[in-house]
Amino acid sequence: MGLGVSGKDRALISPEAARLSFREGLACPTAGWSAGFAQANLMILPREFAFDFMLFAQRNPKACPLLGVLDAGETTGPLLGGAGDIRSDVPRYTVYRQGELVDEPTNITGYWREDLVTFLIGCSFTFEHALQQGGIRMAHIDQGVNVPMYRTNRECVPAGRLSGPLVVSMRPVPAAQVADAVRITSRYPAVHGTPVHIGQPEELGIADLAQPDYGDAVRIPPGHIPMFWACGVTPQAAVVEARLPLAIGHAPGRMLITGALDSQYQVP
Amino acid sequence: MGLGVSGKDRALISPEAARLSFREGLACPTAGWSAGFAQANLMILPREFAFDFMLFAQRNPKACPLLGVLDAGETTGPLLGGAGDIRSDVPRYTVYRQGELVDEPTNITGYWREDLVTFLIGCSFTFEHALQQGGIRMAHIDQGVNVPMYRTNRECVPAGRLSGPLVVSMRPVPAAQVADAVRITSRYPAVHGTPVHIGQPEELGIADLAQPDYGDAVRIPPGHIPMFWACGVTPQAAVVEARLPLAIGHAPGRMLITGALDSQYQVP
Repeated sequence: MGLGVSGKDRALISPEAARLSFREGLACPTAGWSAGFAQANLMILPREFAFDFMLFAQRNPKACPLLGVLDAGETTGPLLGGAGDIRSDVPRYTVYRQGELVDEPTNITGYWREDLVTFLIGCSFTFEHALQQGGIRMAHIDQGVNVPMYRTNRECVPAGRLSGPLVVSMRPVPAAQVADAVRITSRYPAVHGTPVHIGQPEELGIADLAQPDYGDAVRIPPGHIPMFWACGVTPQAAVVEARLPLAIGHAPGRMLITGALDSQYQVP
Repeated sequence: MGLGVSGKDRALISPEAARLSFREGLACPTAGWSAGFAQANLMILPREFAFDFMLFAQRNPKACPLLGVLDAGETTGPLLGGAGDIRSDVPRYTVYRQGELVDEPTNITGYWREDLVTFLIGCSFTFEHALQQGGIRMAHIDQGVNVPMYRTNRECVPAGRLSGPLVVSMRPVPAAQVADAVRITSRYPAVHGTPVHIGQPEELGIADLAQPDYGDAVRIPPGHIPMFWACGVTPQAAVVEARLPLAIGHAPGRMLITGALDSQYQVP
């Protein structure tokens, strides 16, 4: 598999082949790749901070749903198939030292240490796919922008050195489909689940929907209600603010494509 | 609330009052207490083993569903209300050193250390209540014995120092109600969830249902199918076998009564 992959090929490519493309250096966003397979947010931390991170995840499961954890020094695991390598198979990484972004490499083999623990965190791509299959259009996709995200006035439950505000993503949904959007996403508790708020952004401390803290503003079509879901940026923000000596994540929109089916995360 | 509590009172007593009774020294089983409130298995470990335990739980969520975690030194938390104390509010504890049971006190204040981390783990009482409300009788309750539990031939996914077999509990269910029992328990992923096996104990390596490894044998009524659920004894067995220097659990059937409603753990 070379670097040129067409749209249709992207959707049909296997997770293994997709990861191989990224390992070879392709650094593009992963939206639309390997349809039906779950993508994951990445967080890699030194072992000494790993318990705090797991505690933060356990206490804030909507914002930080753990799909898998590789123990210290492990570079592959069930979500990566047998041959995956977490040091090379994500299109682009972000490397933070003391909370400052210092590098955005396509490979972190040079940063690897035996005490690094990898956390794979559920991603909204999974529930967006389910919403679309339920006939609910994603405004940010229609408008060709990233989903808008906002820091809220709700504090996460702190854990050790980690604390910070709940970050939410916003999707405007036609009023007639709001109930359906709740019903569908409620079936995916492992990927942010039920919305945390519907309809009154000011109650979350969001003064202006047109000015997101992350991602892009999205135009709210007439008759649409803004719906808010807990967002995987929440733990990233907490880790950055804790100014840990080293933290490695994925670059925005460049996720790990796992071998797990989206449907595995659906509850009855 | 004194030490004498009648059956009806037990069901109606608030979690706070129940915990106060246990703090005062009452050491009885908690089955039937504080109807509608979730009870939890207990595991208390030194901080240095806490990450391994969380990793084990994350990798074996059906056997080890974490409802809450108190950080090192914390003695109360949301599941204990404002005034609860994990050192005194469980009826009876088990204290292990190097994997050997050395004490079964009603209070662990004398064992407490600032590096102890408390894990609260979902308990089958929650889904048994839901099954009973769905018209499915619990044979072990009808027969007045503890639920039978078996070590299986399925290995848990190991994590650090922790490994061991999946332990299952068995409940015989009338064939006509097996599908209902699956449907009902599937709605409780936080308390063991969907059964791991139905109908062929030998496939789990269980040679004789009449000889459980833990709990009591239960007579299987005619026309009933044995159904197997992952059991909270699984992580206890793994911890004991790891021969950690110190581990504290609850005595069998003497759980923590939490302030969380059983219904909070039900998914749509």
